[in-house]
Amino acid sequence: MSFRKTVKLLCGFAGGSAVLVFAAAAADSRGCFGEPAGVWSRLTVQAALPAWTAANNHTPSPTGHAWDFNWDKRDQATLSNGTKKKETSTEDPSSEQDNGKPKATRNILLIRHSQYNLSGNGDKERVLTPLGREQAELTGERLAALGLKYDVLIHSTMSRATETAHIISKYLPGQGIELLSCDLLREGAPIEPVPPVTHWKPDAVQYHEDGARIEAAFRRYIHRADPKQKEDSYEIIVCHANVIRYFVCRALQFPPEGWLRMGLNNGSITWLTIRPSGRVALRALGDSGFMPPDKLTRT
Amino acid sequence: MSFRKTVKLLCGFAGGSAVLVFAAAAADSRGCFGEPAGVWSRLTVQAALPAWTAANNHTPSPTGHAWDFNWDKRDQATLSNGTKKKETSTEDPSSEQDNGKPKATRNILLIRHSQYNLSGNGDKERVLTPLGREQAELTGERLAALGLKYDVLIHSTMSRATETAHIISKYLPGQGIELLSCDLLREGAPIEPVPPVTHWKPDAVQYHEDGARIEAAFRRYIHRADPKQKEDSYEIIVCHANVIRYFVCRALQFPPEGWLRMGLNNGSITWLTIRPSGRVALRALGDSGFMPPDKLTRT
Repeated sequence: MSFRKTVKLLCGFAGGSAVLVFAAAAADSRGCFGEPAGVWSRLTVQAALPAWTAANNHTPSPTGHAWDFNWDKRDQATLSNGTKKKETSTEDPSSEQDNGKPKATRNILLIRHSQYNLSGNGDKERVLTPLGREQAELTGERLAALGLKYDVLIHSTMSRATETAHIISKYLPGQGIELLSCDLLREGAPIEPVPPVTHWKPDAVQYHEDGARIEAAFRRYIHRADPKQKEDSYEIIVCHANVIRYFVCRALQFPPEGWLRMGLNNGSITWLTIRPSGRVALRALGDSGFMPPDKLTRT
Repeated sequence: MSFRKTVKLLCGFAGGSAVLVFAAAAADSRGCFGEPAGVWSRLTVQAALPAWTAANNHTPSPTGHAWDFNWDKRDQATLSNGTKKKETSTEDPSSEQDNGKPKATRNILLIRHSQYNLSGNGDKERVLTPLGREQAELTGERLAALGLKYDVLIHSTMSRATETAHIISKYLPGQGIELLSCDLLREGAPIEPVPPVTHWKPDAVQYHEDGARIEAAFRRYIHRADPKQKEDSYEIIVCHANVIRYFVCRALQFPPEGWLRMGLNNGSITWLTIRPSGRVALRALGDSGFMPPDKLTRT
């Protein structure tokens, strides 16, 4: 299946080191997004203002907020140089009934890893607690019960996400689901939160490195379907609270620095859908209603 | 309990007519928010730009987005005329450990009504379907299982919300929970969504009336605790998808016109917490994991 192959290829491309991560992100930028050097040079010159927040908006609103239909640079009504195609038949990209137009919706189910041993010495020792393993079983059960045909299960390479993903995959046996790991999805400091908090103060260098890496993860995994994709797809991504919250803000085109205004239970499901028009909907954030209340944690 | 009395008093004040609704909103504006005539005159003159979106932000961010700690005009560090108190001991309103400072957190559980008969003739006939009644039982069960001490259950006066609320209340019998209804919470068109949609086009007059009414509901129900409140409170509000989504955007200080970027299942739980500092967190949006997948609907 070419869809799976593409994901695998991209994942294989992600290296563990910061250098490789930056190389991958830069390659994305050149290869798919039509923003060659500018994005990264602006990042260097103006570190406080990540380039991806200065949106090139298309649909201004009365209050100045807007929706950029070409946010993932895959808008079929837009030429590769960024200008609108002349033959665009409708001003409203929400009409997706036209023949020959892409019709497949991507569903992305973002799972926060379950509870882990916070006092472990380094990532390798920070494995799931007994409760954490139980939570992962419950998440796996729920994902199976939803009865969807999952295309792929991608997880962060951190121990707690890997372990959660392996437990979940046991519940999806008939699907021949492919398990892929990706360094880009590791936990980190995506962008300085607004309002600031006192109990969590990463160094500037953490924002500097993690910010670009997590943005690279967003651009890799959160986008509309390829025009050739015929059927709706369902993908599971097991990763981390900061990564998921940042993805949600970015996908909904809400200010990314607002990510800490949301909280996620361990093992919870956050569901994004992306339509061929580029419309995005958040169907649930932090759904953990499938867990008995005494199994809920947020650590 | 003075907290309940206050809610009751405010609810009793809300009339069914637009005139009373506006009067209530204007009274709120004078009484609590220190924005006397300006808000409403600006609304008249500049109808396309609701005054509440032009935030008087306090904590600017690198990208120009900010967090207004005094968003509900209840910041204890701010005098009633809107200026900062001289004796403010800390620049960071997140430190909530100081003695004598308010400590109670408000938890607001927003429930979307369950499935109803869409083909009914007017609100009175638009009652819950058999599945809708079953969903409300499941929501009630879950709320009871969470084991929280609920202070009040407020519901929109529309039939489907009233019926959902009554079923839910059966599951909270030991609590002596008070049921209140409120016209401000009825379904409506809060603000023109960005991006626009083709399948839903309310008239300008709907946005004009509903917009101010739903904003009035937001200001009435979504705010930090009174400084005198000693313990954390848990309130259930049973209302409607548009109202809940608008509340979430406003509470998180995300652009309110982004409300249609979210979707909510029937009977789902959306959980907001509001700290004494004015910090807000969304703990879950549209949690419906407590329902078997074959009971899930979004109508």
